[in-house]
Amino acid sequence: MYKAVTNLLAERGVTLPQIAEVVLEIQKGYYPELTIEECLAGVDAVVRKREVQHAILTGVALDVAAEKKQLPEPLQSIVASDDFLFGVDEIVALSITNVYGSIGLTNFGYLDKTKPLIIGKLNDHKGGACHTFLDDLVAAVAAAAASKIAHSRRPMDND
Amino acid sequence: MYKAVTNLLAERGVTLPQIAEVVLEIQKGYYPELTIEECLAGVDAVVRKREVQHAILTGVALDVAAEKKQLPEPLQSIVASDDFLFGVDEIVALSITNVYGSIGLTNFGYLDKTKPLIIGKLNDHKGGACHTFLDDLVAAVAAAAASKIAHSRRPMDND
Amino acid sequence: MYKAVTNLLAERGVTLPQIAEVVLEIQKGYYPELTIEECLAGVDAVVRKREVQHAILTGVALDVAAEKKQLPEPLQSIVASDDFLFGVDEIVALSITNVYGSIGLTNFGYLDKTKPLIIGKLNDHKGGACHTFLDDLVAAVAAAAASKIAHSRRPMDND
Amino acid sequence: MYKAVTNLLAERGVTLPQIAEVVLEIQKGYYPELTIEECLAGVDAVVRKREVQHAILTGVALDVAAEKKQLPEPLQSIVASDDFLFGVDEIVALSITNVYGSIGLTNFGYLDKTKPLIIGKLNDHKGGACHTFLDDLVAAVAAAAASKIAHSRRPMDND
Repeated sequence: MYKAVTNLLAERGVTLPQIAEVVLEIQKGYYPELTIEECLAGVDAVVRKREVQHAILTGVALDVAAEKKQLPEPLQSIVASDDFLFGVDEIVALSITNVYGSIGLTNFGYLDKTKPLIIGKLNDHKGGACHTFLDDLVAAVAAAAASKIAHSRRPMDND
Repeated sequence: MYKAVTNLLAERGVTLPQIAEVVLEIQKGYYPELTIEECLAGVDAVVRKREVQHAILTGVALDVAAEKKQLPEPLQSIVASDDFLFGVDEIVALSITNVYGSIGLTNFGYLDKTKPLIIGKLNDHKGGACHTFLDDLVAAVAAAAASKIAHSRRPMDND
Repeated sequence: MYKAVTNLLAERGVTLPQIAEVVLEIQKGYYPELTIEECLAGVDAVVRKREVQHAILTGVALDVAAEKKQLPEPLQSIVASDDFLFGVDEIVALSITNVYGSIGLTNFGYLDKTKPLIIGKLNDHKGGACHTFLDDLVAAVAAAAASKIAHSRRPMDND
Repeated sequence: MYKAVTNLLAERGVTLPQIAEVVLEIQKGYYPELTIEECLAGVDAVVRKREVQHAILTGVALDVAAEKKQLPEPLQSIVASDDFLFGVDEIVALSITNVYGSIGLTNFGYLDKTKPLIIGKLNDHKGGACHTFLDDLVAAVAAAAASKIAHSRRPMDND
């Protein structure tokens, strides 16, 4: 399933290294020595989680159906126009954001609003592509990876 | 949009009075004099909320696409088999459950597990129908309506 | 209870007009004619919700207990230092953010990260004050008010 | 911190084996050969997560403060009476429920409503004890452990 998910992301124009760049962007202020490799490892760990894979598969399926105009109305128009009163994309992304705890919420919201790097490109809506769900999914994966990095840099004393 | 949503629910075999029966079932122990009319009014208020309508439209679109075998694999198999490790249906339902506060969580979980009345019928999977999302959506609408009734029976002193 | 909550906020250094300024700040780009009065009405509506009042009372009680060093360890140190791996403040705030739907998530995260106006002042930690919960609560109220304004400017055709 | 949390649970009358019994109770119908040892290992893994520890520390601190009548009014009365319109306990528990994905929501709600075994005992309110948060926390830990067991019995093909 991991391969199915990364292939699907690639088809939709998103690679894991691109998501890692977003993670580096938001975390380098806190960890100056953070490397793109560590960010990529974090993104990879997030995308290996079943909950995350299910959210990506579902969200992208809705984006693709909207592009093909296969959704029933009024949903077709709502998704195709990325109506900002539509919040199902945020809710589906929330199930990703939370896999490393609720501290991911803040970075998710920040990325969803400022749309840096690949997230901004997805939001261009160029060439008829619909990424209503995908931009939130990518922001959520980046936010979860940032949380994972933050947690892993503070070892727990489990005893 | 309200009409589009109630028509869609009816097409999928669910009427608002059937959801009201679920509400009565879980609330009559607390409020012996509660009427089916009050439950129906609660259900109606929930279904008039935009957030709820968006969740229903999205979830049912995925159920219908699974029935038509239009989803890409591996999502098609996951949704069609109502895989119990798939949690996107619960997450989408959560956006309904929360419209009258987090006390709705408890009733949602209880209804999703015990599946009384119409919720159980949806879960029969008879005749090739796929209601992976719909049974959670209906449980969530009933849980939210129960929360609304609980809140409305305790007036707030807003001063 | 509304009075108890607004009095408590005032004691902790936050007035509803200050929260309204945050709402205006994040929404004026979308609605140039938006007034501070409309923002204040939105904030007021949010703070009149029972779910919101409960979240504020609980979060502020924890802040105050931390200031008085009355929390048991290790919680006392975690809350007093506003440990960024502590996510209970974000979770409690989430119950506010969601009262007008999941579109509030984005603004909440953005405000929690950028900390404009009163939110930034709370985060100063001047004079021994602890606002670990309060800054998230205020960001959440502002985000919910922004969602309410967005929804109310698009009337639903409920028929 | 793990020791601090398990000690605190024990002081409040809850041991990990008691939570494991709840897990066995709700899962044995699905996995007849499931052992109490496997359930205990699941509970232990949940309680080793930082997010879970923070939620338990916070919720129990509020219960204890309510017992000592140290909370400011009107929060003191609300928590001490376990007011069923108070939803902050469910929200804090939600951050536990979600650590192994949203499928935990259903078991959480079911346990919170039916209150089997130790959860029911906590809800007795005997001898002036206040367990408004703790019963939800225990239900959430049990629900998360059940999710973990369900996930671990279906290995992912991560390639």
